[in-house]
Amino acid sequence: MDSERGLAKLAECRVLIDDVDVRILALLNERTRIVEEIGRVKQTLTLPIYEPKREEQVYANITAHNQGPMPNDAVKRVFERIIDEMRTIQQQRMKQEK
Amino acid sequence: MDSERGLAKLAECRVLIDDVDVRILALLNERTRIVEEIGRVKQTLTLPIYEPKREEQVYANITAHNQGPMPNDAVKRVFERIIDEMRTIQQQRMKQEK
Repeated sequence: MDSERGLAKLAECRVLIDDVDVRILALLNERTRIVEEIGRVKQTLTLPIYEPKREEQVYANITAHNQGPMPNDAVKRVFERIIDEMRTIQQQRMKQEK
Repeated sequence: MDSERGLAKLAECRVLIDDVDVRILALLNERTRIVEEIGRVKQTLTLPIYEPKREEQVYANITAHNQGPMPNDAVKRVFERIIDEMRTIQQQRMKQEK
């Protein structure tokens, strides 16, 4: 591959990445809205925010569906970050509503 | 909200979360495939994997498109994890192909 064609290919891939990222972002916000709803229900029922058993189910769901090429351990670390951020958001919302 | 209705609502939300997660997973794998392609091009052109300027563009793209409710700093931390995992995958693939 010559340099010019390579650089054009790179630029093309980056447009695709930016598009995928915007779609990931939309799903993160969709997930946050559902998590906020869960937070409201839990507050009403005085249930704990942190439920390790449910988090295990979340990891089981994604690893069962993972067809790669991203390895399971990498996927799991990304979801650990997502879950951690959303737990923080849930806790902040609850404090605000108290 | 009574307890029974609350628990039913929770179960419903969890089905929605599992569905969103499978869609996030599909996009993570789509992104990984593009990143692998970028890795191949960079290897041919002997360009560095780590490009801080490009990473700034990625963050600028997502924060510009973020309509919430997930705050920008939380979104950024999730994408930092995604980018970090994909950089590792890129580097591993390159070692394998050497």
